[in-house]
Amino acid sequence: MAAAISRRSAVEPFHAMDVLAQANLLKAKGHPVVSLAVGQPSDPAPRKVREAAAAAVYTGRIGYTDSLGLADLRAAISAHYADHYSVDVPSSRIAVTTGSSAGFNLAFLAMFDAGDRVAITAPGYPAYRNVLAALGLEVVEIRLDGDGSLTAELLEQAHRAKPLKGLLFASPANPTGAIIPDDALRGLVEAAREMGITVISDEIYHRLAYSAPDMTALSLGDDVTVINSFSKYYCMTGWRIGWMVLPENLVRPVERLAQSLYISAPEISQIGAIHAFDAGDELERVKDRYRVNRKLLAEALPTLGLPLAAPMDGAFYAYCDVSRHTNDSMDFARKLLAECHVAATPGLDFDPVEGHRYLRLSYAGSEADVTTAIERLRGWL
Amino acid sequence: MAAAISRRSAVEPFHAMDVLAQANLLKAKGHPVVSLAVGQPSDPAPRKVREAAAAAVYTGRIGYTDSLGLADLRAAISAHYADHYSVDVPSSRIAVTTGSSAGFNLAFLAMFDAGDRVAITAPGYPAYRNVLAALGLEVVEIRLDGDGSLTAELLEQAHRAKPLKGLLFASPANPTGAIIPDDALRGLVEAAREMGITVISDEIYHRLAYSAPDMTALSLGDDVTVINSFSKYYCMTGWRIGWMVLPENLVRPVERLAQSLYISAPEISQIGAIHAFDAGDELERVKDRYRVNRKLLAEALPTLGLPLAAPMDGAFYAYCDVSRHTNDSMDFARKLLAECHVAATPGLDFDPVEGHRYLRLSYAGSEADVTTAIERLRGWL
Repeated sequence: MAAAISRRSAVEPFHAMDVLAQANLLKAKGHPVVSLAVGQPSDPAPRKVREAAAAAVYTGRIGYTDSLGLADLRAAISAHYADHYSVDVPSSRIAVTTGSSAGFNLAFLAMFDAGDRVAITAPGYPAYRNVLAALGLEVVEIRLDGDGSLTAELLEQAHRAKPLKGLLFASPANPTGAIIPDDALRGLVEAAREMGITVISDEIYHRLAYSAPDMTALSLGDDVTVINSFSKYYCMTGWRIGWMVLPENLVRPVERLAQSLYISAPEISQIGAIHAFDAGDELERVKDRYRVNRKLLAEALPTLGLPLAAPMDGAFYAYCDVSRHTNDSMDFARKLLAECHVAATPGLDFDPVEGHRYLRLSYAGSEADVTTAIERLRGWL
Repeated sequence: MAAAISRRSAVEPFHAMDVLAQANLLKAKGHPVVSLAVGQPSDPAPRKVREAAAAAVYTGRIGYTDSLGLADLRAAISAHYADHYSVDVPSSRIAVTTGSSAGFNLAFLAMFDAGDRVAITAPGYPAYRNVLAALGLEVVEIRLDGDGSLTAELLEQAHRAKPLKGLLFASPANPTGAIIPDDALRGLVEAAREMGITVISDEIYHRLAYSAPDMTALSLGDDVTVINSFSKYYCMTGWRIGWMVLPENLVRPVERLAQSLYISAPEISQIGAIHAFDAGDELERVKDRYRVNRKLLAEALPTLGLPLAAPMDGAFYAYCDVSRHTNDSMDFARKLLAECHVAATPGLDFDPVEGHRYLRLSYAGSEADVTTAIERLRGWL
């Protein structure tokens, strides 16, 4: 017999991951693929992280930890909030997670029941939409202008149309890099609170803003849930390690769900991550490279007929408008990979309605990769 | 305002994890805790696994992999099915997962929609029930006699009462160690197929049977989904790495869901796991220790008024009847930890109805731990 297949498994693919799989196949065949598809730093994790993890792997037993994470890591994250943001976050409100991916899943399950309406932005990170849908939640997409970011007004409009239970946003945002200014962020959180909408702030691209300092939504109240990760600024994508900061009343529900859904985050990664906050100099050098790459792309893309659709305030993405060359950025991305071995992510990942006009390029890779990609694009277009 | 809390977050805690957290607190205060609560080997992962992982951590960039896993690991798992079971499983049907935990979540989401009825056994692994419930599925518990295992007849009874969409079972089972005999397994899978019930076989305790050879449900057809892990026999709990073998029609749905829910399993653990199948001698020595511990407990427990409720055919658990000492095994476990610093898991984890009569002891730890636990129990009871 054919095994059962659920309706909810019909979520969209994460096209960036399909492009990665395709790029890996081409690489394995010896093709000189340059990948700007996936948002991952080409640098390894900081030296202290790697040394601590390698020592633990080699000498120790790697076991389950408490579901909320190692006490030392939770304490290190708490100290980070004091040091970096001057915000007091007790480690009892911190849950260590298997990447931000687990943070989203746990937050959605702990907060919302099937049928609840949760707002996200379009464009936005595709896993938001896919995971919400798989869990039976109604996804409400708030459409942003090309270079705009979310405001209290846009939230109020959406809520008036039909009441919302939750709101999830990222600043800096993926794929646009847009940052919500401090005043707008304050207004947004206050408006949500007034309307009884539970707020989740995805701060995975914090420390990757190129001019403004970071403001965490935690500074606006302890009823906000923050999701963060060691993947981006800390260069630990494949380690699958992140964290949540929870309102007191959500700690135990999240712990209960995590016990059954994850048991615990990988201990090797937890041991390494304890040292991530001590690696400022090393990580700032990595960020300097992003600045260089960002400048290269900001200058080159418009000259290639690929104008930026967003301001590149933060994160490490250029979201560009490909409509001068194609009406179908998915097909464009496929050809780009097949014909000039440059991997990029079609906008459809981030925006089911307007995404066909856009392409996302990640500039978290090496300067050489970005330069090569620009050269190949120039030759190909 | 108070953040929203969902109804579905009211799943039961995984009491073994709460006991672990409590035991860790006592240990941190300097108490000589002996833990038989959690099913994890006291040995580290095999040497080759640790060497490969440590080298990768130290020298390489650890990144996202394809969502279905590294090609070399999928090939190694495929070769394991040929070597150990003489079953042909193409690596295209293998999905590497973040522990068996991710396997269950992905299988449930890919196969079932909210409201579908899925059968499990009582007693059984608590995460089955908790994750099914969190995903809106109706859990149908098929009650087993103390030392019995699941049969086609029991499945047919349950299906007649109200039709089932899916069936999930484990052999060897947690917490009883019971093994479904080959003929009964064949009958069960055939009966399920006839009734149109999709089968998930949890084979996480394979290679930990003490007399019979393993039979994989994959040898009974390619419409069965198998979930397995490197945690138990391969001593890699905290690495969070496992795998699924999927029917062809479920590969892409699982891949799509995994892209958004997990991105990929931790790469360090994937690199290590490639070498797990080469460590037979080392792992058989570990298993020899389980045999010794198993004998110690099988002899001692009945003399302590704690008769075995199950046969200990496989896995590394003694499920014993504590009803001569208490009507409330949860309270008993709490006192056992507080008063004689032995951590064990209350039966309520595995069986909400009859669990108050039982306690699970894991003998995956050292011989010294098992001996100490027995001595302390003898002094305390």
